Amino acid sequence: MAKEITSRAEDYSQWYNDIILKAGLADYSAVRGCMVIKPYGFALWEKMQSTLDGMFKDTGHVNAYFPLFIPKSFFSREAAHVEGFAKECAVVTHYRLKNDPDGGGIIVDPEAKLEEELIIRPTSETIIWNTYKTWIQSYRDLPILLNQWCNVVRWEMRTRLFLRTAEFLWQEGHTAHASKKEAVDETLQMLNIYADFVENYMAVPVIKGVKTPTERFAGAEDTYCIEALMQDGKALQAGTSHFLGQNFAKAFDVKFSDRDNNLDYVWATSWGVSTRLIGALVMAHSDDDGLVLPPKIAPLQVVIVPIYKSDEQLGIITEKVNQIVKQLKDLGISVRYDNSDNARPGWKFSEYEMKGVPVRIAIGARDLAKNVVEVARRDTKEKMSVDINGLSFYIKTLLDEIQLHIYNRSKQNLEAHITKANTWDEFVTILDGKTGFVSAHWDGTAETEEKIKELTKATIRCIPLDNKQENGKCILTGNPSTQRVLFARAY
Amino acid sequence: MAKEITSRAEDYSQWYNDIILKAGLADYSAVRGCMVIKPYGFALWEKMQSTLDGMFKDTGHVNAYFPLFIPKSFFSREAAHVEGFAKECAVVTHYRLKNDPDGGGIIVDPEAKLEEELIIRPTSETIIWNTYKTWIQSYRDLPILLNQWCNVVRWEMRTRLFLRTAEFLWQEGHTAHASKKEAVDETLQMLNIYADFVENYMAVPVIKGVKTPTERFAGAEDTYCIEALMQDGKALQAGTSHFLGQNFAKAFDVKFSDRDNNLDYVWATSWGVSTRLIGALVMAHSDDDGLVLPPKIAPLQVVIVPIYKSDEQLGIITEKVNQIVKQLKDLGISVRYDNSDNARPGWKFSEYEMKGVPVRIAIGARDLAKNVVEVARRDTKEKMSVDINGLSFYIKTLLDEIQLHIYNRSKQNLEAHITKANTWDEFVTILDGKTGFVSAHWDGTAETEEKIKELTKATIRCIPLDNKQENGKCILTGNPSTQRVLFARAY
Repeated sequence: MAKEITSRAEDYSQWYNDIILKAGLADYSAVRGCMVIKPYGFALWEKMQSTLDGMFKDTGHVNAYFPLFIPKSFFSREAAHVEGFAKECAVVTHYRLKNDPDGGGIIVDPEAKLEEELIIRPTSETIIWNTYKTWIQSYRDLPILLNQWCNVVRWEMRTRLFLRTAEFLWQEGHTAHASKKEAVDETLQMLNIYADFVENYMAVPVIKGVKTPTERFAGAEDTYCIEALMQDGKALQAGTSHFLGQNFAKAFDVKFSDRDNNLDYVWATSWGVSTRLIGALVMAHSDDDGLVLPPKIAPLQVVIVPIYKSDEQLGIITEKVNQIVKQLKDLGISVRYDNSDNARPGWKFSEYEMKGVPVRIAIGARDLAKNVVEVARRDTKEKMSVDINGLSFYIKTLLDEIQLHIYNRSKQNLEAHITKANTWDEFVTILDGKTGFVSAHWDGTAETEEKIKELTKATIRCIPLDNKQENGKCILTGNPSTQRVLFARAY
Repeated sequence: MAKEITSRAEDYSQWYNDIILKAGLADYSAVRGCMVIKPYGFALWEKMQSTLDGMFKDTGHVNAYFPLFIPKSFFSREAAHVEGFAKECAVVTHYRLKNDPDGGGIIVDPEAKLEEELIIRPTSETIIWNTYKTWIQSYRDLPILLNQWCNVVRWEMRTRLFLRTAEFLWQEGHTAHASKKEAVDETLQMLNIYADFVENYMAVPVIKGVKTPTERFAGAEDTYCIEALMQDGKALQAGTSHFLGQNFAKAFDVKFSDRDNNLDYVWATSWGVSTRLIGALVMAHSDDDGLVLPPKIAPLQVVIVPIYKSDEQLGIITEKVNQIVKQLKDLGISVRYDNSDNARPGWKFSEYEMKGVPVRIAIGARDLAKNVVEVARRDTKEKMSVDINGLSFYIKTLLDEIQLHIYNRSKQNLEAHITKANTWDEFVTILDGKTGFVSAHWDGTAETEEKIKELTKATIRCIPLDNKQENGKCILTGNPSTQRVLFARAY
């Protein structure tokens, strides 16, 4: 029996949850807002992690690890930063449990109260810049190009598997530079790396842009972002890269002496992507039969299912499959031969479709007699009869083709969903009907931005990089505007 | 100028801290008991991690991720478990900060108190077995062979860089099985994997054994361990593998139906190693000039330093070095050419000695004329003049030789420090003088074990696997004993 999932048309949100649970990516946990990342979901994260980690290292970054805990006082140093995160902090106040002397079981020992409360990091700028103060004296100590892979906690009130969880896994880069230009260049370099990864590995096309002041990271001078479009027409912020100016250097008094022995504050960037990307991946490509994974980050690229009626047939098939498996592995393709006898082929087909394995090969006794196998691609559901001679090269080419096809399909969807609106009516009609990004003039004020959000739930996702400058009138107020910005409802 | 470190003879403990700090492995942090793992230390951890992760996957294990938080009530379910960890738990009680209305700055919002406190995981048996309850119904769901790489927190009162920190990084395997035999086999398999890794990659010889009931993991039926010997004659527990019996299955009511449809509780194991291994590595091999790293896990295996008087000389040297670098990389050897002009060769030599880079190649204009280079090995400090023809193969062989030499040196040290004691006087004399492991008879009671610990600070490190059975008398009480056990003072 195939596992049933809700269709996108029926309930997009339920469809998403069904896929996460039934493809075995994650599970709910007993802790409010926290999830369990199951082995298949974690294998996906490992693929994403190792690819990104390689890209970071290729551009000179190194990994390190800073404490999970941040003293409350550090948090208050940068005003915008604490303002941005104070409302969602998990706070450690005690360091011991004990047996209740009154027989109430295990209780928190009131005598083991911390002098200063510790915040579980929601992001690590403060603890890291407090450390950089001791590492940086001179321009010779710069740049510092650090990254860390870790867990962070933001006490969100409304949570959602992968997209918004109280605890999540991410990487956070924290770099320190001797000049503003170098820091801005780094910020943009990392934005481009994120875009490269999300487009070329995850096959999700993105728009690169800069956030409005309202949507900036708490403590940043500029927040750059990549925005993706989900199948329901909502936008999803897939990664951010922040130019932090000298804000954290000033908050933690981190100065360096330059070549001429002048003292100045250090320039900073930070940038991160998280397990949220898995949510984006699911929403961007999957269909009503389950997950659809781009081959470049699929934990398993090819599955081979034997179709047989006797042990003798299975023996003959297995002998042939072993050769095919070896040839595929030699080409660097990950493959599993599922000859388990506890499920019928049809059940296995559904299961691997649910898990989004890009290519399925079915091989039966009759196929073998004709020296062919049946190859099915997950993205289009097409089936082809393919000669066993040259099969491995055929599959290699097919995987590339699938990768490209998934990307192009998403790219077309994105391009078809960037719509210009010149009046308020058009704006609202597009948001409610066609959905997607709406390109419209805005008067540049936070008040108008807020008002539009209140009226439509749409936010300014970004001002695209190298945005065309043109005179126009704000969609809401009619006040003059010099450029269009991209609005959308978003995850 | 070379950085100075305290010698082992002068102050072993200070020597250890000096190396950690001056080799750039870690740094103190602003949070009590927590440290910052610096890039060089983290690169070492990444080497260890990737090797171990490969070994886990080769034996069928997969990675997953469970929440950082454990509800307090879960903790109380397994009596021995909570007893063992209650005294060192970091407890989250609130989820929001706010501005003090009385002007006292940022404070914990008293209205944002959690209904049930959350413990930061000191280990994850409870949250994982609570999840397994929903994953396991039948023998078909078994075995579950999971591992997770994560941070854990144990609120230790006396901390020490890498060896004992409030937060540390580790991996914890948690497996579920349909039979006792299978679980015991898994426990021993993982013990052997740990021993294999620590001996063959870290070049630290170990003794495999089982802990006494007193020293068992809180909640285990049996705790197996690998014990290593440090240069100061103290033992260090390098890894543990626990047979948990059905304790956690009973605490969380996890049953499965077997092939005959009978219900039984599931059998469990857990096993872990942590960043503590880095402390063991430092203490086992290093010397008064700094770190000594075994080539197999050194982040950098070879450094090449040019010695020149003019740019013209540097140009000629660099041309030759580029060829050497390529040849070494082709053999899978990691190498850095340090041609930075901000330090003299002598300073660089000291720096790379401090960092424990296994092989240093120095190359000057005069060497080049003779087609030779100077090769220095870190472990013995020997220097050799080596012909450039065939240099890469020479280095490859040398790295293997260094790996073996470091291991053999430690192995000899270990073997020389396992001493039999037949009387109490002998026992105490060895502990205070020769140090190391003392093999002595013990009457098998927890009282005697405790008494010996009080009198000498020595604990029973383990009962070696396949221990020889022989009649004897307890070193302290004179009561009959059937086997010797290994005592030592330990980290």
